[in-house]
Amino acid sequence: MQTNNQGVQVGIVGGTGYTGVELLRTLANHPSAHVKMITSRSEKGVSVADMYPNLRGIYDLQFSVPDIDALKTCDVVFFATPHGVAMSMALELIEAGVKVIDLAADFRIEDLAVWEQWYGMTHSGAALMPKVAYGLPEYYRERIQKASIIANPGCYPTSILLGILPLLKAGLVEKNSIIADGKSGVSGAGKGANVAMLAAEMSESFKAYGVNGHRHQPEMAEKMVDITGESVDLTFVPHLVPMVRGMESTIYVTLKENTSQEVIQRLYEEAYASEPFVDVMPAGSVPETRMVKGSNMCRMAIYRPAGGSKVVITSVIDNLVKGAAGQAVQNMNILFGLDERLGLNQVALLP
Amino acid sequence: MQTNNQGVQVGIVGGTGYTGVELLRTLANHPSAHVKMITSRSEKGVSVADMYPNLRGIYDLQFSVPDIDALKTCDVVFFATPHGVAMSMALELIEAGVKVIDLAADFRIEDLAVWEQWYGMTHSGAALMPKVAYGLPEYYRERIQKASIIANPGCYPTSILLGILPLLKAGLVEKNSIIADGKSGVSGAGKGANVAMLAAEMSESFKAYGVNGHRHQPEMAEKMVDITGESVDLTFVPHLVPMVRGMESTIYVTLKENTSQEVIQRLYEEAYASEPFVDVMPAGSVPETRMVKGSNMCRMAIYRPAGGSKVVITSVIDNLVKGAAGQAVQNMNILFGLDERLGLNQVALLP
Amino acid sequence: MQTNNQGVQVGIVGGTGYTGVELLRTLANHPSAHVKMITSRSEKGVSVADMYPNLRGIYDLQFSVPDIDALKTCDVVFFATPHGVAMSMALELIEAGVKVIDLAADFRIEDLAVWEQWYGMTHSGAALMPKVAYGLPEYYRERIQKASIIANPGCYPTSILLGILPLLKAGLVEKNSIIADGKSGVSGAGKGANVAMLAAEMSESFKAYGVNGHRHQPEMAEKMVDITGESVDLTFVPHLVPMVRGMESTIYVTLKENTSQEVIQRLYEEAYASEPFVDVMPAGSVPETRMVKGSNMCRMAIYRPAGGSKVVITSVIDNLVKGAAGQAVQNMNILFGLDERLGLNQVALLP
Amino acid sequence: MQTNNQGVQVGIVGGTGYTGVELLRTLANHPSAHVKMITSRSEKGVSVADMYPNLRGIYDLQFSVPDIDALKTCDVVFFATPHGVAMSMALELIEAGVKVIDLAADFRIEDLAVWEQWYGMTHSGAALMPKVAYGLPEYYRERIQKASIIANPGCYPTSILLGILPLLKAGLVEKNSIIADGKSGVSGAGKGANVAMLAAEMSESFKAYGVNGHRHQPEMAEKMVDITGESVDLTFVPHLVPMVRGMESTIYVTLKENTSQEVIQRLYEEAYASEPFVDVMPAGSVPETRMVKGSNMCRMAIYRPAGGSKVVITSVIDNLVKGAAGQAVQNMNILFGLDERLGLNQVALLP
Repeated sequence: MQTNNQGVQVGIVGGTGYTGVELLRTLANHPSAHVKMITSRSEKGVSVADMYPNLRGIYDLQFSVPDIDALKTCDVVFFATPHGVAMSMALELIEAGVKVIDLAADFRIEDLAVWEQWYGMTHSGAALMPKVAYGLPEYYRERIQKASIIANPGCYPTSILLGILPLLKAGLVEKNSIIADGKSGVSGAGKGANVAMLAAEMSESFKAYGVNGHRHQPEMAEKMVDITGESVDLTFVPHLVPMVRGMESTIYVTLKENTSQEVIQRLYEEAYASEPFVDVMPAGSVPETRMVKGSNMCRMAIYRPAGGSKVVITSVIDNLVKGAAGQAVQNMNILFGLDERLGLNQVALLP
Repeated sequence: MQTNNQGVQVGIVGGTGYTGVELLRTLANHPSAHVKMITSRSEKGVSVADMYPNLRGIYDLQFSVPDIDALKTCDVVFFATPHGVAMSMALELIEAGVKVIDLAADFRIEDLAVWEQWYGMTHSGAALMPKVAYGLPEYYRERIQKASIIANPGCYPTSILLGILPLLKAGLVEKNSIIADGKSGVSGAGKGANVAMLAAEMSESFKAYGVNGHRHQPEMAEKMVDITGESVDLTFVPHLVPMVRGMESTIYVTLKENTSQEVIQRLYEEAYASEPFVDVMPAGSVPETRMVKGSNMCRMAIYRPAGGSKVVITSVIDNLVKGAAGQAVQNMNILFGLDERLGLNQVALLP
Repeated sequence: MQTNNQGVQVGIVGGTGYTGVELLRTLANHPSAHVKMITSRSEKGVSVADMYPNLRGIYDLQFSVPDIDALKTCDVVFFATPHGVAMSMALELIEAGVKVIDLAADFRIEDLAVWEQWYGMTHSGAALMPKVAYGLPEYYRERIQKASIIANPGCYPTSILLGILPLLKAGLVEKNSIIADGKSGVSGAGKGANVAMLAAEMSESFKAYGVNGHRHQPEMAEKMVDITGESVDLTFVPHLVPMVRGMESTIYVTLKENTSQEVIQRLYEEAYASEPFVDVMPAGSVPETRMVKGSNMCRMAIYRPAGGSKVVITSVIDNLVKGAAGQAVQNMNILFGLDERLGLNQVALLP
Repeated sequence: MQTNNQGVQVGIVGGTGYTGVELLRTLANHPSAHVKMITSRSEKGVSVADMYPNLRGIYDLQFSVPDIDALKTCDVVFFATPHGVAMSMALELIEAGVKVIDLAADFRIEDLAVWEQWYGMTHSGAALMPKVAYGLPEYYRERIQKASIIANPGCYPTSILLGILPLLKAGLVEKNSIIADGKSGVSGAGKGANVAMLAAEMSESFKAYGVNGHRHQPEMAEKMVDITGESVDLTFVPHLVPMVRGMESTIYVTLKENTSQEVIQRLYEEAYASEPFVDVMPAGSVPETRMVKGSNMCRMAIYRPAGGSKVVITSVIDNLVKGAAGQAVQNMNILFGLDERLGLNQVALLP
């Protein structure tokens, strides 16, 4: 059972999907947080341990109907909901002093016109945007500390931004020709009943998808511009890998001028030297998604093939941890002034 | 990094295989144990984090050549070695007051003639056998507390003995016709280069193996006799599942007389009521291996199909955790009078 | 493209699922059959090659609304439909001289009271039953030749009946204690949107299911009685394997008296000596599901572990081929007096 | 059994690996070819059906010691050997009038200095190069017809060259910035015992490899130059997918000037209109590797994301068929004036 009921009081809205169970898994061993309530309209009264038997004996908690007054008794509310839900409840919560961490996309893109185009709905939370921080701690930690609402980044943006930003910030590469080739395990598609995600359909097969446009492209492009102050041209193609968890991104950029592999390697090592959840592997290493499975780490390696003008970065995360629930807990730790690593000490499951 | 160097001082002999890395993963978060040394003749000087990149940033430890004097400075030595190694070093260690936990098979079978027949080598440790306990805590906890050497059980025996012993002990079933149909993920075959275990060979395929005889059969049969005091006839067929981790056993027994499903269910629930790592699921549940992936739990369900004379038990474990390294740490905790659950609080990784 | 439009004119009702596409794959290279129409109410007008891109360039055929008059212009109609559909259309078809091959369960169980109990609907086809043959050619070939309707067997019954019937017919084993432990790839669950069959749910996991009762148990039990003339007690537990195709059954029986492995091996080899699609492997072989992937073969091996009283048979098929569409085509060949092997010469895809 | 012993008499040298068994699978149903001998020094006398049980009942053939005089009695000899073997035997064979098809890399790169650098051995076949054709029929069919030796292309080159050459030949894209991101199933790594290719190592994980340089890069670059007459700058990164068969390549190029998606789509459709084994899917389609599993097809789709300057091509093949043995048989058909499609009518296995 959760070993304490002290510390940060946590509410989770919409916890029946994979990010919900992953939040519960992560918070189960958090020494300074307590999951007080978890809501699901459809699963009202169901024990979380019945829906997720890996939690049998860990949580004695039932799904409840979402109730704004009950949620106001929490210190922080995570939204593991479809897009559009968090923006409808966030104002009332933050006015009550409750922090909001949205694992959906409601607050990820500052340009709401762009957001509305990609998500196909009206954005009702314009007034909230000044209180939002983009929850990529490695680049927005100070803003996160002061924010009321955290836009937890998408999984692809997490792996790709972490991989490319040191080079972009350093001004070493052409910004008009960035290629990011992303690959995700199937848990990224969520738990909805979907023929295309049946094991019989996607096992033992590999494919690209969303080649003509994916919602994570404008999210990444906006943050690249925000951080570097310059325009970028980013081509992004996601792919589906026949595995449950894990995400790998291979990023191709062109050097402006000759910069040695050693200089670039050092640039990355220094950029992330004090980051607990980014591991720049030694030159020549090969990041594999299993090296981060179940953990909050991002591991990456940097190459300059054949000493040419291209730099290639490969970056791996667990899409459900650093790409979702783990990063959300990292953001919670920052919001409440806790050690950023609390609850996030899981060692990756290898093999 | 390992957060303390206090507590039980641990040595690991032969840590390059899957049980070795799993010991390191489990002990990384153990609050009262410290891995002091890990040995491998072939990998001398290699950092464990280079061999197992999931441990990067967790351990600052190199493989060293096994040295008995150095090992004597430990409180406990785990052997994650091929069969035959532990028996050659155990005497000297226990005479120095060091506890030995063998994850190989050296001490699993008391009848050494049987052992020699199945393992194809001479057993040199007859004198040690009185100091050995079979490390299945749910049935041998008191012996474990007093032992110097722990024979950590095989993975199939763990899942099958836990599944069948309540019925056998209660004398409710025929002992002359027990069928155990076991299924294991491929990590059970170890990390040796073996064509049959290539992904291209065993992915997307399923097979039985060892049908004419498997070493875990005499191990199980002996413990069944030991615990019930009566002879048994056990047929055991293992199978290979195209997945990395996980083991499921489906056990078929015949009732001596009409006993209701409810009575049997209650028998199991009572048998394991105080066991932290055995979960008797409610009637009608379906244990899946993913419900225990990466955790030390054994989950099981009991059925009486069509109300007939057969009882079916299905039991799942993670073969590398409750079936190997996790159970070894549980045994260590017992040996040193620690809370049996220390270091073993990982929630199963689902999905 | 289908290379001829001569030969047996084939209609397929309900061809959008996995047995439908598998029928199309199998018939694509059949030298004496031509798929004339394929129906699906929901997919009317859709090209089969759009739904199943592996058929691009092979078939120039659209799904049409099922029309009984059109179907009567065929020589044979395959039903790849939910249970209950074939029985509603079969009478009119066979009266028009059209042969019916049902890949669903409508005609598999002669005892309609049992059928209704397991399938939860009223059986409207009692009058048809005398014209039905159970489509397991190795045991019912003569009846198939004369039948109007073929009840294509379930996948588990195909693999288990082929595996056990030589021993049962020979009277060598106890009939009151048969255990069949079956394992199926996920394509057996069909193409319906079903959360439990998502890749994220069932990949890298293994479980039993239907332990308290599965529809294939009464089907098998009835045929065992039919063929041996004696009652049987069959316990059957199916399991789900994280792979797309393939089925393995491990069958446990008890010898009445000492019969040598050699005698049993010879019994099997003789039983299937002239069968084109049953392969009794040499003693000591290990059937793997990949040895039959995509082919109509059933391969099996027979063991007598430790020379004891138990005989173990392991039997593998591709659940979609010999367990469904391939066997259906084999039955079609028999019905029309063709070489039974026509269209069924695919070599299993290994690796 | 092979149904005829007429037609082209085939010898296979080194048939114990995956391309060997795939040649046997493909040729089993070839109406105008007969496998006369297959050699393996290490497996001398072993039945191919014992090594590859999917071939039980299909071939009655044993591995023999390679004997040049025996091989001279064949019409064609396939080399499914390690690099370096074919070049040592080819001269004597072609002088005897025997055609040679090398599935290894001996003759793939015309620039032998480059070859020696990448393959780490001396090339002894310079005199043979004038008689070699690169066996990509879609671009070298006329040369193949006249050649004595066929250099069967690598798997990545097949999928990438087919995907990019229409655009390159048309001169529509920048040649100095081509990115090819390739992904291969594990069978591409062959059947050697290799820890990194164990199922326990690579299942449920994804990684790049060979980022700093892969042998298929110079092969592709040379053919791009050969066909377009201009220099190219190609960055190629291969990845390993946790599946057995299949290869997907995502290719990124930059348009020189605005060219509409429709024009590019038409260009591809026309380029391959008469090719039996290249399928340009309709705009908006998503090629998946399972759409070609077990078949000789290459399927591709062309995109212009967000109407920008980049064109993305995704191309899928079965690495063992169109990427190896199937293409080799296609080349054999061309060499002997047969219908190019003979023996290659397998429909992809989906699901």
